[in-house]
Amino acid sequence: MNEKKRTEIASLGQFGLIDLLTRDLRAANPTTLRGPGDDAAAIAPQPGEVVLCTTDSFYEGVDFDLTYFPLKHLGYKVVTAAASDILAMNGLPRQLTLSLGVSAKLSVEALQELYEGIALACSQHGIDLVGGDTRASMTGLVITATVLGAAPEKQVVYRSGAQQNDLICLTGNLGAAYMGLQLLEREKRVLRDVQHPEPQFAGHEYLLERYLKPRLRTDIVESLAEQQIVPTSMIDLSDGLASDVLQLCRASKCGARIYLDRIPIAGQTSALAEEMHADPVVAALHGGEDYELLFTVPLAQRERIMALGCIDVIGHITPESTGAFLVTPDGGEIRLKAQGFPEG
Amino acid sequence: MNEKKRTEIASLGQFGLIDLLTRDLRAANPTTLRGPGDDAAAIAPQPGEVVLCTTDSFYEGVDFDLTYFPLKHLGYKVVTAAASDILAMNGLPRQLTLSLGVSAKLSVEALQELYEGIALACSQHGIDLVGGDTRASMTGLVITATVLGAAPEKQVVYRSGAQQNDLICLTGNLGAAYMGLQLLEREKRVLRDVQHPEPQFAGHEYLLERYLKPRLRTDIVESLAEQQIVPTSMIDLSDGLASDVLQLCRASKCGARIYLDRIPIAGQTSALAEEMHADPVVAALHGGEDYELLFTVPLAQRERIMALGCIDVIGHITPESTGAFLVTPDGGEIRLKAQGFPEG
Repeated sequence: MNEKKRTEIASLGQFGLIDLLTRDLRAANPTTLRGPGDDAAAIAPQPGEVVLCTTDSFYEGVDFDLTYFPLKHLGYKVVTAAASDILAMNGLPRQLTLSLGVSAKLSVEALQELYEGIALACSQHGIDLVGGDTRASMTGLVITATVLGAAPEKQVVYRSGAQQNDLICLTGNLGAAYMGLQLLEREKRVLRDVQHPEPQFAGHEYLLERYLKPRLRTDIVESLAEQQIVPTSMIDLSDGLASDVLQLCRASKCGARIYLDRIPIAGQTSALAEEMHADPVVAALHGGEDYELLFTVPLAQRERIMALGCIDVIGHITPESTGAFLVTPDGGEIRLKAQGFPEG
Repeated sequence: MNEKKRTEIASLGQFGLIDLLTRDLRAANPTTLRGPGDDAAAIAPQPGEVVLCTTDSFYEGVDFDLTYFPLKHLGYKVVTAAASDILAMNGLPRQLTLSLGVSAKLSVEALQELYEGIALACSQHGIDLVGGDTRASMTGLVITATVLGAAPEKQVVYRSGAQQNDLICLTGNLGAAYMGLQLLEREKRVLRDVQHPEPQFAGHEYLLERYLKPRLRTDIVESLAEQQIVPTSMIDLSDGLASDVLQLCRASKCGARIYLDRIPIAGQTSALAEEMHADPVVAALHGGEDYELLFTVPLAQRERIMALGCIDVIGHITPESTGAFLVTPDGGEIRLKAQGFPEG
């Protein structure tokens, strides 16, 4: 972080600060009746629509490291991560409240950078910032994002609807965000004692973008609606493929077979994994923070799903008693386990 | 806090912990379609209803002190404080999501105490816990509560609707929560080095209850609806009378006159203030955390308001150009200022 102009937060006061940070944000959504500045936000749902609500928190030192995470990207990512849970219900995100715990080490200018990223994510995805609070934190930065969304009642998809023989479908590719994080951590270690560090990121730009500025798969939810496809179950990939498939199986009381050679992995992900003597499949299974969507559809809808052009069928649903396994190219089966990425 | 049985949070894992904490919570609200355990909660608003949403965060060391704040009361208070913002829109709270940042010093048993208080507040006020997350915090306990509520569209009251000559109405009495906090802080100072401290709380029970376990004025919103009274503006008293009146004036572009001798102050509040050589009116003006409701109605509704039996008329709305003042019994005028309680 460059230290440019520095205005102390205390010099503005709580209301002055909120006014400054939110003055360029305008409500764009017709369902937003009242945004920030009242006791609560007021939203007028459209007839027949269900309101969806999700909360995600991000703690400095646990979920992000400000030595390499630019505040603008952090703001963008927080909105993306929370809104992704709305997409996972087959809904679209519409409103956001933000609760910030801010330590004195952050200046007003730093918070403005954070809000630039928040505003960018909001404007790209039609989300209105409608409220929240900003408080002193005794320690690091804490950000809690609550996103409200909406979907026609018949279109809402839960984790619990997967049926036997359903196809397991996946958007995008996996493991890239995790390898981006590994790269940033490596450069931080290597350059710890260097006075003017110049991290080596060439050829890894895609991985950094996937970690620092993840995309939100609004396009998928919109395509499904256009094609009138309602998945039987859906979840977003935030904890890694293994953990998220297991959660879907648990909710749907079913098993699953995932074919290892069908898990999509980007070229940069494989290349960096090889360079770092890691297995890219492990990054896909346990890395997390991909924010892609995993969903199931009946076997009969295979062609309609393939016609969307951006979906991989990576496996199928089996009876609960058969468990959840990864199938290797030689036909071997490895039980899926929820676990963190093995360190080192 | 007594240290009894101690189970480490890490021994349960994230999902085991959430299952344990939420297993006794049942959704009671017909509008709650899906509670915890999916990517997002799903809520079916009733036709013609507006959805209200508010977020409040509580930081250990800033908003509460665990040396004297029992965790059960803390859980209760967090729900109350957030839900109070829904009442201030003339709506009723219905759903809650909680985001907890938990340091390793807290045991599973401690979190269960916290959840007991949360569950009690929820069951008393018909609120469903529908989601949230529990994460590791590098430092103290952080609790963010998001409450969703609802109100018929024509019944929603904003801060911005006060009109000239409207009566300024207040529920309950002010300053008690602040004096409760002063008492707890005094006993903490006095007993700092005592091995088996026995704090002296006799005769001050009401003040402690107002600070540690504030009541939620659901009864007022229900009474107003029964009597078909829709206030012109409303706010809840969380920052102290002066700050909250000023916020209402700012939103409504108006001035106000508050009559000092009409500000209701409880006997225990005055008694402890006298004992501590403090002015109870200052506690009412700047203490905060009373969670009473302040609202305005047209002059013509005075009798209907008085018939409710639990409301004080403490002043009236004036033109913006005349400012916001406290009127003393001798007719003097003191400009209202938003400020913290003077220390010492």
